[in-house]
Amino acid sequence: MLEWCNGQPVNGIALRDRGLAYGHGLFETIRVRSAKPRLLDDHLARLKEGCQRLGITVEHSILDAEIAAFCQLIGDGVAKLIVTAGEGARGYAMPSPANSQRILLGSPAPYYAPENSRDGIRVFPCSTRLAIQPRLAGIKHLNRLEQVLARSEWQDPMFAEGLMCDQEGRVIEGVFSNVFIVRNGVLITPALLRCGVAGVMRGLIMRTATRLSIKVEVRDLSWSEFSKADEVFMCNSQYGIWPVRACTEHEWPIGVLTQKLQGEIETILDS
Amino acid sequence: MLEWCNGQPVNGIALRDRGLAYGHGLFETIRVRSAKPRLLDDHLARLKEGCQRLGITVEHSILDAEIAAFCQLIGDGVAKLIVTAGEGARGYAMPSPANSQRILLGSPAPYYAPENSRDGIRVFPCSTRLAIQPRLAGIKHLNRLEQVLARSEWQDPMFAEGLMCDQEGRVIEGVFSNVFIVRNGVLITPALLRCGVAGVMRGLIMRTATRLSIKVEVRDLSWSEFSKADEVFMCNSQYGIWPVRACTEHEWPIGVLTQKLQGEIETILDS
Repeated sequence: MLEWCNGQPVNGIALRDRGLAYGHGLFETIRVRSAKPRLLDDHLARLKEGCQRLGITVEHSILDAEIAAFCQLIGDGVAKLIVTAGEGARGYAMPSPANSQRILLGSPAPYYAPENSRDGIRVFPCSTRLAIQPRLAGIKHLNRLEQVLARSEWQDPMFAEGLMCDQEGRVIEGVFSNVFIVRNGVLITPALLRCGVAGVMRGLIMRTATRLSIKVEVRDLSWSEFSKADEVFMCNSQYGIWPVRACTEHEWPIGVLTQKLQGEIETILDS
Repeated sequence: MLEWCNGQPVNGIALRDRGLAYGHGLFETIRVRSAKPRLLDDHLARLKEGCQRLGITVEHSILDAEIAAFCQLIGDGVAKLIVTAGEGARGYAMPSPANSQRILLGSPAPYYAPENSRDGIRVFPCSTRLAIQPRLAGIKHLNRLEQVLARSEWQDPMFAEGLMCDQEGRVIEGVFSNVFIVRNGVLITPALLRCGVAGVMRGLIMRTATRLSIKVEVRDLSWSEFSKADEVFMCNSQYGIWPVRACTEHEWPIGVLTQKLQGEIETILDS
């Protein structure tokens, strides 16, 4: 499997890298189709925001060229990009910004059962709650133990995803997805100012809905409101949109708006 | 500088290791004096607890032998131990427990100004707050972005440490230390059930105080109570105890109990 660090094929990273020591870095999981990275601008915009928040400087022109060359070699599959703060002296103090490391990891396209898109999924209600940390909310940093713990809560393959709430009980996201509900024709997705990852597919769906004159609200979402939704779906940049049919004792139909957005997103990704 | 992975001198770790991908691992920073790891049992007990919580299995007899051999080569300095969950398939699901990786990194003993111990320190009040996450509290895992952000808040060397509160304003710990106060002859240290790292030196100080018939309380500590303390000190396994003289507009003397514990801890570490 293809692995690059700073544009070179290597198979390891320094043991003193701050990405390993502290999770001081960011990542993006980019779908590659026909040698082209999909939604790349959105991935890079989130990466840039993350770098700013974590004090990491990355040469974006070099990175762009590396991603393009890497995707040529991948063809079809996934390119996972990791940017770390690199090596520093012992201790938490920021190292020179120039130390940042650019890692690219190639993988085959993940397999998802086609039924997930077509018939919808059942979602496991995770008891692991997302901590409230506004300084890290929204970005895709390398501190992902909450997702590891949440994903370890179920093994039964009948659950395609898990749903996570924050420490105060608001519905936030899936373990590897964002979540939307539809209520009275309005598309609602949780605000991610306290925790959660602002997904690239979430952004595309919001823009697409706005283009279609569907009203979009980004705000807090209680469990009660979630459970009473007309439609529920999850999304990420790999699988697109999965209708959510059930979580705990609640059930939802596959809605008209969900199907409409599925069609639109597929068209965009196929273009 | 000495670097081992699984008992072998190497200088890198796999790019797909979950320690890098998710911070799925733990670390211990062990003081080595005269080729002997200090407070090793306490470090290993915390590591074991962390491994259980994060679903990581480590061969403790092999690890013990590697640490002993590594410390022989270090002589005097620091041995940083990192245990990661190792490589897994793409995604958050736990890999086979057998994949765990044991990393040992040698460094010279860190330099701390002797005035810190003797005259006490001034502490920076960090605005980065610790998120509340009971499932990760107490253990020394690799998700340390909050400490990175907090440490980046000050450059002025007049501050030897920073003080961190949780999201609800309780006093919790330093960026790389634990904190104690003394009030009416009672030693008080924050409970670490919601966030924070249960330091090895913190444990030793609590046991030492109990042996000396000093009453110890582990409980929530408000900023108000902190500011009105008779004595304040910080501690970690590298530098021992630093009296805290000032934080924001508050000032404290170097107290009798702080000095007594400093003497006791020095005797234990020199033995």
